[in-house]
Amino acid sequence: MIYSEDIGFINEFHRMTAIGYDPNIGVNRIALNEYDIQARETLVHELKTIGAEIIYDDGGNILGNLSKNFEGSIFIGSHMDSVPNGGRFDGMYGVVAALNVLKKLKNQNKIKNNVTVVDFTNEEGSRFQPSLLGSGLTTEVFTKEFVYSRIDDNGITFEEALKKSGFMGSEENRIKRLKANKFLELHIEQGPVLEREGYQIGIPIGIVTLIVDEYDFVGESNQAGPTPMDNRKDALVSASRFITEVRENAKRYGENLVSTVGKIKNLPNAYNVIPGLVSLTLDIRSPDKKMAENFSKIASEIAEKIAGEEGTEVRHKNLWVTETTIFNEDIRVLIEKTCKSLDLKYKFIYSWPGHDAQYMNRITDTAMIMVPSHNGRSHVREEFTTDKDLINGFNVLYKTVLTLI
Amino acid sequence: MIYSEDIGFINEFHRMTAIGYDPNIGVNRIALNEYDIQARETLVHELKTIGAEIIYDDGGNILGNLSKNFEGSIFIGSHMDSVPNGGRFDGMYGVVAALNVLKKLKNQNKIKNNVTVVDFTNEEGSRFQPSLLGSGLTTEVFTKEFVYSRIDDNGITFEEALKKSGFMGSEENRIKRLKANKFLELHIEQGPVLEREGYQIGIPIGIVTLIVDEYDFVGESNQAGPTPMDNRKDALVSASRFITEVRENAKRYGENLVSTVGKIKNLPNAYNVIPGLVSLTLDIRSPDKKMAENFSKIASEIAEKIAGEEGTEVRHKNLWVTETTIFNEDIRVLIEKTCKSLDLKYKFIYSWPGHDAQYMNRITDTAMIMVPSHNGRSHVREEFTTDKDLINGFNVLYKTVLTLI
Repeated sequence: MIYSEDIGFINEFHRMTAIGYDPNIGVNRIALNEYDIQARETLVHELKTIGAEIIYDDGGNILGNLSKNFEGSIFIGSHMDSVPNGGRFDGMYGVVAALNVLKKLKNQNKIKNNVTVVDFTNEEGSRFQPSLLGSGLTTEVFTKEFVYSRIDDNGITFEEALKKSGFMGSEENRIKRLKANKFLELHIEQGPVLEREGYQIGIPIGIVTLIVDEYDFVGESNQAGPTPMDNRKDALVSASRFITEVRENAKRYGENLVSTVGKIKNLPNAYNVIPGLVSLTLDIRSPDKKMAENFSKIASEIAEKIAGEEGTEVRHKNLWVTETTIFNEDIRVLIEKTCKSLDLKYKFIYSWPGHDAQYMNRITDTAMIMVPSHNGRSHVREEFTTDKDLINGFNVLYKTVLTLI
Repeated sequence: MIYSEDIGFINEFHRMTAIGYDPNIGVNRIALNEYDIQARETLVHELKTIGAEIIYDDGGNILGNLSKNFEGSIFIGSHMDSVPNGGRFDGMYGVVAALNVLKKLKNQNKIKNNVTVVDFTNEEGSRFQPSLLGSGLTTEVFTKEFVYSRIDDNGITFEEALKKSGFMGSEENRIKRLKANKFLELHIEQGPVLEREGYQIGIPIGIVTLIVDEYDFVGESNQAGPTPMDNRKDALVSASRFITEVRENAKRYGENLVSTVGKIKNLPNAYNVIPGLVSLTLDIRSPDKKMAENFSKIASEIAEKIAGEEGTEVRHKNLWVTETTIFNEDIRVLIEKTCKSLDLKYKFIYSWPGHDAQYMNRITDTAMIMVPSHNGRSHVREEFTTDKDLINGFNVLYKTVLTLI
């Protein structure tokens, strides 16, 4: 059975996701760019139509509440920014669903003071690194100095971009200072597990540990022609052996660990020159922090071994580590009950990407709700979730909020 | 024994190579840039001081001759452009040596009409692809339309850059039309063989075949976190396995073949995204064209096999093939005799990089003379040859020219 509010939600979802979307290349709603600002203005407009009060904090996070009292509120939401050429579902789903929870609460005369919709700034980290800047500031995991000094590829600081956007708010509106009472985030899975195994809802136990290491392989750059094969110190051959061996190793961990070399830079990168320097990143994720740390160590040993054999040098350093997040168990159980009452097949899973919920979890009881991603594809224009699955997730969020208020 | 002309030569060499040289990064005398133009103006000035007549052809190649008759001349020279952050010796050595052969001929009253110094434009192919543009045009291997329409990274055509440089000359001055009588090019080896084996002079039998192939590995780009290892189509893993296996294969050929993956492009190239597309070049060289062609086929089979195993796709195409060049045997024997008369240890070798001599070889009897490169390093600021070796090469060139005129 589909309620009229569900149709309102799904219509609004497809309208909102059209902002910054080009069918040929995907969504380019990069943090605080023209499309992100358009989406923010649309969100503010929609919140105003139901009489919500809107405030911003000094990270540009947008908060909307049907009363004038944000303190001690239950927060629900996600982010509207996208990666370059991203999908329509990531982030925006959770914001539009939260907005429509508020609309449905009002329509059904179940308005309470204590539900606040939130849109977090720069979740993706595509424009300003690292990711989760807005939630990091509002939870005071990051300092204002750190967040404001982040610089995009054009030399613009986060502070400049935020001021220019018109969404600069004040420190007093940070969620940590408003003393949040719970946070719920609805999101697409971004992985293939729920669809493949036939589940309608995923209930994240938590978010896996992420370790990002950087490797430099240093060889000797020479003209390709006159240097015999046995006289070469080819940095790209060393890096290629490393990528191959690390992947073989990671496969042994089954579903307990993933490892990815996503970024590589080769110098001087000319067809007729033996590569002299290759830099690459190694992204390691596991629900088990010790396992991730151990894998990071194994990878560095593989690198040392290969460099030794190839006559190249290798340097490596850790860029960052995020701890494993474990969400609030009581809310997880409540979500499970909601799924049962709605007759939805659910699975407890781990979230492998990071989410704003991981910083919110540090300041208040937090949980997430996930829906299937077709073929597990995400951060690409092929990202897809059916309307039915989107509505299922929306209903789980709505009913869970109802039992919490 | 060092003649005063040798000291003049070596002094001039070190003065000329200072143009566009920065000790920290190397030489940036990129074709027709400010440094290349400065070098050209210096060459013209030096030629004028000995009373030479100077003409340019429509490829910007500079010709200098002590008489007014360029027709039927013996041509000697090389190029003055460098790769980015290149070495001081590559190309410039052959031009300064040729200039000083002319100076020495004049000093010793052995002036003949029929020796012309030449500086070829855009030998390296760093600014305008392909390489050997100047010699390709002057020998009419390339058409004017082809050469003029080459575009650099800033959208400037070869024609525009040449006009702006002030070195635009006329079609009638092409070496092919001047009916060249022999060509000699003195150059550094750019490889480790002569130094390693204790030779002072290399006499190239010819220039090896070069095959450049391009490969695209197409995978599936997804968020790194949520995609299990057994569900991935990682284009960079496929490319890495290819690079590793092709290198292993090439090693079996000993000194008969080299293969290099020098250029690689990874998309989208973000630390947290599984690579979806990797493009790379494979540079294959061998004195035996059939062997190079066979290796190219083996590489494509390796790529197909890996792509099949990894669930990725692979596309490949040939970018270009240059035939094996065999230099004139009579001149090679003459150079050998010269080496013997000067008591220099020489070796017949193949040139593994391409040179202007390979196009000159198509229109006239051509040979090259090579001197050792320290550690075989070239196209980098560490490129080095001792003054003694430079002078040996200069003397071999001078004496060979003396016997030819």
